Amino acid sequence: MNISLYFKKNFLVLNLIVLALILAVFVFIEPSVAEKSDVSYKFNEKGELIKPEGYREWIFVGTPVTPNDMNNGKAPFPEFHHVYIDPVSYKHYKDTGKFREGTILIKELISVGSKSAASGNGYFQGEFIGLEATIKDSKMFSKEPGNWAYFSFSKPDHTLPVNDTATAFPAAACNACHDASAAEDWVFTQYYPVLRALKMKK
Amino acid sequence: MNISLYFKKNFLVLNLIVLALILAVFVFIEPSVAEKSDVSYKFNEKGELIKPEGYREWIFVGTPVTPNDMNNGKAPFPEFHHVYIDPVSYKHYKDTGKFREGTILIKELISVGSKSAASGNGYFQGEFIGLEATIKDSKMFSKEPGNWAYFSFSKPDHTLPVNDTATAFPAAACNACHDASAAEDWVFTQYYPVLRALKMKK
Repeated sequence: MNISLYFKKNFLVLNLIVLALILAVFVFIEPSVAEKSDVSYKFNEKGELIKPEGYREWIFVGTPVTPNDMNNGKAPFPEFHHVYIDPVSYKHYKDTGKFREGTILIKELISVGSKSAASGNGYFQGEFIGLEATIKDSKMFSKEPGNWAYFSFSKPDHTLPVNDTATAFPAAACNACHDASAAEDWVFTQYYPVLRALKMKK
Repeated sequence: MNISLYFKKNFLVLNLIVLALILAVFVFIEPSVAEKSDVSYKFNEKGELIKPEGYREWIFVGTPVTPNDMNNGKAPFPEFHHVYIDPVSYKHYKDTGKFREGTILIKELISVGSKSAASGNGYFQGEFIGLEATIKDSKMFSKEPGNWAYFSFSKPDHTLPVNDTATAFPAAACNACHDASAAEDWVFTQYYPVLRALKMKK
């Protein structure tokens, strides 16, 4: 075989291999690139927040419980609250100690199911009864304190299913309390030990 | 330039590119392969469980609270308990409704930090004070009920840091209660709404 022809043939084969490998690398790189740029919330064309999905697989940060029976039968936020942060914003907080632009925190409400179990007396979780969220977005909420807006998908009587969309509350409805009492950037980190532990390592 | 030499040079450069790309592909493939086959626990040469790391980034399933002040000043498990499942076993549970061989559940203990906040009266989380785990492994714990063994890294007085290793409790110390009262496969799923919700979808 002519040596030029030999290299020419191999050159073509190698080009195909290189192309296949470049494609393969992009397939595997792509998710991590997406992770870095994406936010975990979407608004519809009416400007309503669409109920997030998959948040129970996000990073859990803490659970306060404000039971009805400790609040004259009707707690403002009944009763357990599972609080989650989206994974990209969690990583940012872990690295920098700050809530990034594009952070979404979820507060899922759970009823008290029982007050006594094999492990002792206390409060034990019952059913999911509501869903709330807060988002830090300086483009969408440039006039809100800290650029945080607050949303509730919960039905007024806490029956399921929760609503599919939610509109932002006026700042006074939520942010007044957050402004007065939240430890950090309008977030109640003082009650979220997972986030506090990250700060203590800095 | 001689055409043979041209292709020979390019052949070498291309070989290097191919090698680099093959390496890059392996770097990106490797973690997802590991995820599918691995368990999230390790034992040392003495047969002690090594304290798991990164569990706060696993899947959270529920939080009971058994406060000291509701248990004559000294709860058996003070006070909040964050319960997590490793991600591979979570996916298995989500798909099949069963705890797989190799499941590890974490129970991290948190003190009550306060009982009143802007959101009402209740129990609000303080500091991490202990760490416990349970593992389902039929090879290591063939004689334990359900093949579950129980471990505690907590110091007796709940001071930090928790211990680096833990040995399995005798079955009677933990499994008696789990056997009598746990809803499913010796696990208290009745108090873990995230797992219960997955079952309800089946």
